[in-house]
Amino acid sequence: MIDETHPVYALILAGGAGTRFWPASRAARPKQMLALLGGDPLLLETARRVLPLCGRDGAGWSRLLVASGEHLAEPTASLLPELPRENLLIEPVARNTAPCIGWAAATVARRDPDAVLMVLPSDHHIADTDRFRAALERAATSARGGAITTIGIQPTCPETGYGYIEVKGEAASAGGTLAVQRFVEKPHRALAEEFVASGRYLWNAGMFFFRARDMLAALAKHQPALAEGLCRLDRAAASGGEAEELAQIFPALPSISIDKGVMEHLSDLAVVPGDFGWNDIGSWQSAWELADKDPLGNAAPPGTVLVDARNNHVVDLRQGSGGRRVIALAGVEDLVVVETEDALLIVPRARAQDVKEIVEQLKTRGDTGLI
Amino acid sequence: MIDETHPVYALILAGGAGTRFWPASRAARPKQMLALLGGDPLLLETARRVLPLCGRDGAGWSRLLVASGEHLAEPTASLLPELPRENLLIEPVARNTAPCIGWAAATVARRDPDAVLMVLPSDHHIADTDRFRAALERAATSARGGAITTIGIQPTCPETGYGYIEVKGEAASAGGTLAVQRFVEKPHRALAEEFVASGRYLWNAGMFFFRARDMLAALAKHQPALAEGLCRLDRAAASGGEAEELAQIFPALPSISIDKGVMEHLSDLAVVPGDFGWNDIGSWQSAWELADKDPLGNAAPPGTVLVDARNNHVVDLRQGSGGRRVIALAGVEDLVVVETEDALLIVPRARAQDVKEIVEQLKTRGDTGLI
Repeated sequence: MIDETHPVYALILAGGAGTRFWPASRAARPKQMLALLGGDPLLLETARRVLPLCGRDGAGWSRLLVASGEHLAEPTASLLPELPRENLLIEPVARNTAPCIGWAAATVARRDPDAVLMVLPSDHHIADTDRFRAALERAATSARGGAITTIGIQPTCPETGYGYIEVKGEAASAGGTLAVQRFVEKPHRALAEEFVASGRYLWNAGMFFFRARDMLAALAKHQPALAEGLCRLDRAAASGGEAEELAQIFPALPSISIDKGVMEHLSDLAVVPGDFGWNDIGSWQSAWELADKDPLGNAAPPGTVLVDARNNHVVDLRQGSGGRRVIALAGVEDLVVVETEDALLIVPRARAQDVKEIVEQLKTRGDTGLI
Repeated sequence: MIDETHPVYALILAGGAGTRFWPASRAARPKQMLALLGGDPLLLETARRVLPLCGRDGAGWSRLLVASGEHLAEPTASLLPELPRENLLIEPVARNTAPCIGWAAATVARRDPDAVLMVLPSDHHIADTDRFRAALERAATSARGGAITTIGIQPTCPETGYGYIEVKGEAASAGGTLAVQRFVEKPHRALAEEFVASGRYLWNAGMFFFRARDMLAALAKHQPALAEGLCRLDRAAASGGEAEELAQIFPALPSISIDKGVMEHLSDLAVVPGDFGWNDIGSWQSAWELADKDPLGNAAPPGTVLVDARNNHVVDLRQGSGGRRVIALAGVEDLVVVETEDALLIVPRARAQDVKEIVEQLKTRGDTGLI
C-alpha cells in the first residue's frame, strides 16, 4: 500500500454535529469527540485505524487531513496533537461534504496530483481493524488505477436508515472490486428487504477513494461552480493567501453532498464490498449493542450499583468527580442514563429519539449553554 | 393552653436513622433533617408547629427538648440555633424510646414535676396545623388532669404498616377524649380491614402526653430497672455531673419502646382521636403523594425537562450546583430519581424498598461514606 512515489492521503470528515446523543454530545462536543463505547474518542480511534496506511512510523500524520468546523478547531487540534496544523481543514461554514472533499482534493493535488485520497467518516465503529485496512487497501489500489471507488458494507439486515449501493452483475460478495450500477436513497422496509435478498446491494458508508486529479476532474465536469470556487481557493493557497480567501469563497460554494454532487453522476464508479464489523453508532440502541455488558445486559461504568436491573445503559461523562460518587439502579430495565457535568438524562432506550424534543425545549427556554 | 404556673414542654424524638430514603437520607442526615416535601427540614417544621404551645413570643424554645444521637448533635444544633444547648438530649447510644422519654421526663420534673410533657416524632407530615394544635391542646389538657394520654389518628385505609389503638366503647370519633382498650401491633390486611370497619381503632402515631411526675411513676411501676437508672442520672444532674454519668448509665438502661415498656401496661390510658392530615412519610410513595405535582403527576424541581414523562418523582439535593445543570426525563413513568452530591438513584416508586439492597451492596464493598 505504501507507495513512496504516490503515497496515500486520508481525509477524515469530523465536522458532524447532531443532538442524538445529548447530553453526551453537544454543539462543542459532537459524537466524534466522544468515547461512546469506552476507550478513546471515535475520531482518535478513526485516525489510529487509518494512519498506518498513510505512512510508516508515524509519518502518516503528515498525510492525514481532518476537516471540521470553526467551533471544533480547538478541541479537534487538542485531540490530535500530532496532526500538523495545516492538515486541519477548518470550514468557515458547513457546506455539506462536496466542497470540503473538493478542498481536500485540491490541497493534496498541490503536493501530488496522482496521490490517492481516502475519505472516511470520523464517528463510526469498526470491529475488525485488519479487515477494514485490507478493504481500504483494495479500494485505494482501485483508485490508484484511476477509478473513483467507494466501499459498500455487506448488509446484515434490511436497514432503512442507510442509503444503498447497487452493483452491476449478479452478486456483491467480498473480496473483489465491482462496478456500481447506482446509488439508492434510504429505502422503505419492503424495498430494503428486497435489496438484502437480492445480494446485489451494499450499504453506503460514506467512504470514498480517488486520485486527487480524478476528483478535481469529476467536480469540474459535474459541479462546475464548485470547481471554479476551488480553483480560486487553490490559486490563493499557492500564493500563501488561502486563509483570507477561504472566508470569502467557502460560504459561496454550493452546499451539496459528494454522493449527490459527484458519485450519482459517475458511470464508472467502483465499489469494494466490505465486511469488517461496521456500525455507524446511529443511536443509543447501537451504542448499547456495541458496548461491553454484564450478564444481565447492563452497560455501566465500574462501581455502578445494580439491583435487579436489566439491559440498561449508564454513561457517566462527568469529569474529575473522583471515585466516591455512585450511580444506583434498582428494578429498572432498558433505560439509558447519561450523566454529564451539567445534565442528567433518563430515557427508555427505545425512545432515545425523544432527546430531540428535550433539546428543543432547552432551546425554547434559552438554555443554549446546555445544547 | 399556656399555663404560666405549669407550662407545657415538648420532646421531639429526632434520633431516627433509616435507609429508606437513601441517597437522600444518610446516617449523618436522616429523614428528619431532610426537606422531603420541599419547604424546610421535617424536624424544623415539627419544632415550629409545637413551639406556640410551649410559650408565647419565642419563649417556647426554652421548653422544647430535642432528643437525638451523638452523630446528629451538631447538625441538629445547627438546624435549631435557637434551641438552648441544655435542651438537646444527646443519647450516647440508641436505647429505643422509653429510656429517652424517661430521661426527658426526669429533666422536666427537676424544673416542675407537674409540668406536662408532649412527646412527638420529628419526621411526620401534618397537613392541618390548626387542627393538629387543637388535638395537642386537648391531649395536654387530659394529661394535666393526671391521665397519660396519646393521640390516635383516624384511619383512612386498612394500613398494615402502623400499630393500632383500640378504644373502649363504641366509636372513636374526633372531638373527645376516650379511654384506650389496648395497643395492637401492625395487623395483617384482613384484620386491618376489620379494624377500620369497626370504627373503634385508631392509628398509633407515637405521640404521648403526660405530667412529668406521672411518667416517672409509671416507669417506676412497669420498668423499675429503667427507673432506677434514671434516678441515678437525675441525682448526677442535680449535682451538675450529668454529662459524666450519662456515658456510664445510659448504655446500661434496658432498650425498650415506650409503647411496650409503659403504654401497653396502663389500664387508664386516654386517647384523643386526631384528624389533621397526618402522614408518617414512610416511603417514596408517601412522599410523592404529598408532594406538589404537575398535571401529569410529576413532582420535580423547577427547570426539570419532562417529555411525555408521567408520575415521576425527581429529588435534587445537590448543593451549590447553580442553575445550569438540568435533569431531563423522556418517556418514563413512576420513577423515583434522587440526586445528591455523591449519588444518583433511579428506581420505580413501587420498588423503592429495593433501596435497602443497594445500601447493603455499598456496605459489602466498603463504601461506608455513601451510607
